[in-house]
Amino acid sequence: MQRQVFFISDRTGITAETLGHGLLSQFPQLRQTRQTFRYVDSIDKAKETLASILQMASGKDKPIVISTVIADELREAFAHPDIFLLDLFAAFIKPLEHELGVESSHKVGHSHGCVDDVNYAQRIEAINYTMAHDDGLNTRNYERAPLILVGVSRSGKTPSSLYLAMQYGLSVANYPLTEEDFDNDNLPKVLQPYKQKLYGLTISAQRLSQIRSERLPNSHYASLRQCQSELASAEMMFRKYSIPVLDVTQMSVEEISTTLIDARNLLD
Amino acid sequence: MQRQVFFISDRTGITAETLGHGLLSQFPQLRQTRQTFRYVDSIDKAKETLASILQMASGKDKPIVISTVIADELREAFAHPDIFLLDLFAAFIKPLEHELGVESSHKVGHSHGCVDDVNYAQRIEAINYTMAHDDGLNTRNYERAPLILVGVSRSGKTPSSLYLAMQYGLSVANYPLTEEDFDNDNLPKVLQPYKQKLYGLTISAQRLSQIRSERLPNSHYASLRQCQSELASAEMMFRKYSIPVLDVTQMSVEEISTTLIDARNLLD
Repeated sequence: MQRQVFFISDRTGITAETLGHGLLSQFPQLRQTRQTFRYVDSIDKAKETLASILQMASGKDKPIVISTVIADELREAFAHPDIFLLDLFAAFIKPLEHELGVESSHKVGHSHGCVDDVNYAQRIEAINYTMAHDDGLNTRNYERAPLILVGVSRSGKTPSSLYLAMQYGLSVANYPLTEEDFDNDNLPKVLQPYKQKLYGLTISAQRLSQIRSERLPNSHYASLRQCQSELASAEMMFRKYSIPVLDVTQMSVEEISTTLIDARNLLD
Repeated sequence: MQRQVFFISDRTGITAETLGHGLLSQFPQLRQTRQTFRYVDSIDKAKETLASILQMASGKDKPIVISTVIADELREAFAHPDIFLLDLFAAFIKPLEHELGVESSHKVGHSHGCVDDVNYAQRIEAINYTMAHDDGLNTRNYERAPLILVGVSRSGKTPSSLYLAMQYGLSVANYPLTEEDFDNDNLPKVLQPYKQKLYGLTISAQRLSQIRSERLPNSHYASLRQCQSELASAEMMFRKYSIPVLDVTQMSVEEISTTLIDARNLLD
């Protein structure tokens, strides 16, 4: 089973892609080619896009078009018998208008996605803070962070911190636990005043070894034995200081980030 | 007009939030309180969530519930007369099943959003590359970058580079243009072999001054005059070297990123 899939948006296309990939992942047997048309915000661009799709659509099966286009006249341009159209706004805007008893604005440009909810300046500020406080680089101003991630090298601290900063405007710091800390058997001194802000990340030794091997193949650093030893020491440290721990072995960056948001009520 | 809005997901809730904010932004007159219930992946959690929503729902108007929950028995738990439910999967999965002539898997956990399409290792690798090559920090290995952003301080280079790395697994570098470069009237030497990879970011002087003022209020650096002078010099440099330019004054990080993807066919 094979289909061509097109995402169409009057903006970035990120909502259409995210929604579409989620929907299509429910059909694991479906092989797809995917293409996104972004910034389809005029009737001319809509006609051009439709023509491109019809030209590319080969074979007997209709291409699947997933659209988040808002303006009526642009949406209507894609109602074509040779296209299987999933029109997001038509499906939900009409029932919402009815429920609320008002007309929607139907305007291009209102739909920025969830990012608009976080002030732009706050996101930029958070990204700068997180970059400056990545990997224990800068250990001042920890009082500003709502969360400080701790864990061994390559346990997912950096991408999770950055995602929380970028998506939610949270100034998250992170600090690596190293052999030195384990030899001391004490939480690094700079972290001790901020125990309430700490959250530990752990991961399976196999997965960690695999991740580290991509960076330094056949190294002591990436060996399964070294990974096992560091992870065991880190987990002992977390227990000793009652630091909560998240096992990220099977988790995406988005899952780690949202789980931490819930665990610490970071958005309240 | 005021409503309570709840996002429900069996995963991170990011798709429900993104979609929901887009839909609701079409009703600018609607005042909302918003809350997300994530990881609603069992019938017990679904019942608990429903009870919480009904308890919180005050007043005569129904709460709006936007759901991306997949499994039938969980979705059905939210079909309650006191709730206005927008059920994303019900709206689209049924028509898709019909069009494709197969049943969907209806399984929780298939819907990771667009991030799954990019290999996890590739995203992490890209984030590491981008952090190491932020702000001209490391100027080696530019041959690996598909794109190098250039512009004055605070023109949006860092967040855009990181977003492209995080969301699309692209190893994007960025390099700041400074007074020194303008005095030379030459593109920095390290960039010259990579002219084809460069993309300039520019921004209005007013906006730049505002952004810089948040960092260093009342400074020479943040003054309108200084911003005007730097931006004029940068734009002259872009013209001299035929470097394409994007004016990011009115753009979100997502818009900048997707515009650059299209301009340079970064995903092909």
